[in-house]
Amino acid sequence: MRLRKKPGATDKINAHPTIVIPQPEQYRGRWEEAFSDQTKKPLHVEFGTGKGQFLRDMSDIYPDVHYIGVELYESVLVTALEKNINHEGKVAFILGNVADAKDYFKEGEIDRIYLNFMDPWPKNRHAKRRLTHANFLEIYKQLLPKDGEIHLKTDNEGLFEFSLQSFSENGFQLKTVSVNLHRDEPEDNVRTEYEEKFSSKGQPIFRTEAYIPQ
Amino acid sequence: MRLRKKPGATDKINAHPTIVIPQPEQYRGRWEEAFSDQTKKPLHVEFGTGKGQFLRDMSDIYPDVHYIGVELYESVLVTALEKNINHEGKVAFILGNVADAKDYFKEGEIDRIYLNFMDPWPKNRHAKRRLTHANFLEIYKQLLPKDGEIHLKTDNEGLFEFSLQSFSENGFQLKTVSVNLHRDEPEDNVRTEYEEKFSSKGQPIFRTEAYIPQ
Repeated sequence: MRLRKKPGATDKINAHPTIVIPQPEQYRGRWEEAFSDQTKKPLHVEFGTGKGQFLRDMSDIYPDVHYIGVELYESVLVTALEKNINHEGKVAFILGNVADAKDYFKEGEIDRIYLNFMDPWPKNRHAKRRLTHANFLEIYKQLLPKDGEIHLKTDNEGLFEFSLQSFSENGFQLKTVSVNLHRDEPEDNVRTEYEEKFSSKGQPIFRTEAYIPQ
Repeated sequence: MRLRKKPGATDKINAHPTIVIPQPEQYRGRWEEAFSDQTKKPLHVEFGTGKGQFLRDMSDIYPDVHYIGVELYESVLVTALEKNINHEGKVAFILGNVADAKDYFKEGEIDRIYLNFMDPWPKNRHAKRRLTHANFLEIYKQLLPKDGEIHLKTDNEGLFEFSLQSFSENGFQLKTVSVNLHRDEPEDNVRTEYEEKFSSKGQPIFRTEAYIPQ
């Protein structure tokens, strides 16, 4: 993604330490303490969370889930923060690298991972940066419990193809695969910013769930 | 598929017993004897072979493979026969049911299975008829050797989704998945009749390979 530096982003993020958690390593293994209800609940994490609409809407629909978004770029995360100012204590964000996720989360601590419209990194030499590369799947395997799931959506054909194959080759099974999610859009589908944009152009949205079989 | 009875189909098929094999069970385990070169070669079988263009073209390109097409409907198979009249001894057909494939082929005898534009059977209550239903995959597993592959192409979104999931849930791994085969059509892709028809309408062609990991 090409990014402009956003003036004031750092200050804004620093001003909301209950939403963008400054030292996420401190909550490793006890993330319920970062949420206002201080109660153990299923933890769902969106890696590459982007502009934050998805987690905002999901947290409204599913109050019994704790949502965390991990985002690498400050200039993007600040938008997610702005959209979730009123969701303090329900949604938390981490400014950080998915490759470091094991520093933030304990083994088996994440019940579900969302990968929504992640960067496709179309060049072969960048394949390792794709969030469904085998190296990342190995991390997810450790963070998910036995019945944990990954939910992926993308508009990018090449990334979807790569991801299906990568899941398949790395011990994951697929379910509820869709090559055209909006053909018969599930009632519980929550659209992201990108999803609305690409769908309005008539592009198909691809989706799959992946899990490690028992 | 809705089918018209083709007048003279039975007679035509019976008149070419070296192309449409009358008692395929007799060749079980020794299919090389049905081909003019009488030589052991890789055996590739198209289940639901349809109108026969694919096998005709493949046998021209790959003379070192023996090709067999299995087709349930006489009125369809007669077209395949007509297209392959000049391919006697290179391509053979079986008028029969894929569910009976173990009567025609020995364990591990088929090196590769092709499933091209098979009937999608879109109603859930017909799911068992889809050629990628778990029941069929169990048959294929027995007919393929350890490194055997299934190559699937379809224009049908629902069938493709079902098939990916079915492969995944039944011990197959996926490779070279494509959700738009003609986006960057592989040089070695051989188009079927349906593929040309659907592609000319601008519909994406879906493709995957599936194999049992060692």
